[in-house]
Amino acid sequence: MVADLILNTFDWVPEAPRGYVRDLRVRWALEEAGLPYTVRGVSFKERDAAHFAHQPFGQVPWITDGDISVFESGAILMHLAGRSDKLMPGDARGRAEVTEWVFAALNSVEMASLPWAILVFSEESRESSAWEKLNGFLRLRLGHMESVLTRREWLAGEFSVADILMADVLRLVDRFDGLADYPACHAYVARATARPAFQKARADQIAHFAAADAACA
Amino acid sequence: MVADLILNTFDWVPEAPRGYVRDLRVRWALEEAGLPYTVRGVSFKERDAAHFAHQPFGQVPWITDGDISVFESGAILMHLAGRSDKLMPGDARGRAEVTEWVFAALNSVEMASLPWAILVFSEESRESSAWEKLNGFLRLRLGHMESVLTRREWLAGEFSVADILMADVLRLVDRFDGLADYPACHAYVARATARPAFQKARADQIAHFAAADAACA
Repeated sequence: MVADLILNTFDWVPEAPRGYVRDLRVRWALEEAGLPYTVRGVSFKERDAAHFAHQPFGQVPWITDGDISVFESGAILMHLAGRSDKLMPGDARGRAEVTEWVFAALNSVEMASLPWAILVFSEESRESSAWEKLNGFLRLRLGHMESVLTRREWLAGEFSVADILMADVLRLVDRFDGLADYPACHAYVARATARPAFQKARADQIAHFAAADAACA
Repeated sequence: MVADLILNTFDWVPEAPRGYVRDLRVRWALEEAGLPYTVRGVSFKERDAAHFAHQPFGQVPWITDGDISVFESGAILMHLAGRSDKLMPGDARGRAEVTEWVFAALNSVEMASLPWAILVFSEESRESSAWEKLNGFLRLRLGHMESVLTRREWLAGEFSVADILMADVLRLVDRFDGLADYPACHAYVARATARPAFQKARADQIAHFAAADAACA
C-alpha cells in the first residue's frame, strides 16, 4: 500500500543546512502523529516549472495528500493537525490557542530570528548599525518568550504543532549561541528536541541527504 | 445588543504607523465579512499584566469572541475565516489553498519585508553589507510573487484572508517605494486597497487614533 501522504523535499543539500531543512518540521509532526508517509526527492540544483507549481518560491517542503497539495511549513502542520489530535486538540478554544502560537512562532519570533541568522551566517560585523537593530529586534522577542516559557512546559496545554514550530525556530537561534541569556528558551528547546519523534525526524533527514552523497560518490 | 467580537488595539499611537497598525488587517476582514464588532482601546504607553495575558509580546491586536481570546493577526484572520465564507471557501482543498497563502504572506514575504522596512525606516545606509543581504532576500521573494501575481487576480481563487494579509504586507513595501520593479505586485496592492472594506477599515483606524489626539488636546 502506498501512503497517501507524500513529503517533498530536496534530493540533496550542502552540509551546513542538514538537520535544519524545513522538511524536518513536517517529519517531526508526522512522527508525533504516527501518520505513514513517503519521502520524495526533488532536484536541488535544477528547479523546474513543476516545482514552482507546488512551491512558488522554489523552496521545500510541500506535501501532497490525495489531490491536495500544500506548501509552507506552517500550513502543512495546520493541515496535518486536522488529521491527528496528537498535534492539536479538537475543541474550538484549544484550536484557537494552538493556532495563535503557530503564528507567533513564525510571524513574531522567526520574523526576527531568520534575518538575524542570515547576518550571523554571513559573518556580518556585530558593530554595524544594522546588526544592532536586528539583534535588538530578536532580543525583544526572546525576552517575551523567556517570560512565557518560564511559566509553562508547552505553549498551549499539551505538546502541539505550535511547539514543533517554536522549538524549531528557537533551535536555529541556539545553534548560533543566541539563547545564552535566555535559559528558559534554551531548556524548552532541549525538552522538545529530546522527544523521540524529533530524534527520528532529524536522523531521517540527515540519512536522506547522506544517501544522495553516497549515490554521487 | 453588544457584538460578540471585540477588537483590542492601542488607544493611541504616534503619527507614523497610523494606517498601518495591524488591527487594520482585522478590521478589513470584519468589514469584508460584514461581522459586527466593537473596538476597545488599550494603553499604548503603559502595558499591564492584563495586556500581556492576551498578547504575550505586548503588541496589538487581539480579539475576544465570547470566551475565546486570539492574538496574532494571522491567527485572528484564520479564526474569522471560520465564521464567514466571504473570507475562505468551505471545501478542504480551497481551505488548504488559502491557508498556504496566509502563511506565505507572513512567513515567506513578511519575514523578508519587515526587517527590510526596519532598515529603511531607520535610514540604514544602502551601501552596507547587511542592507545588501536583506534587500537581496526581499527582492528574491518579490521576484517570485511577481511571477505569481502576473498570472492571477487573487491568490487562491476568490478574494480571501490570504489577500488581506499579502496585500497588507506588500503595501508597507510599496509605502517605501520597494515595488518599483514589481508592477504586478504594485497593481495587486492597488486592486486590493481599492476595495470598500479596506477603505473603511483604514478610515476607521485613522479616526480612532485621531479621536485620542482630540481627547488629549
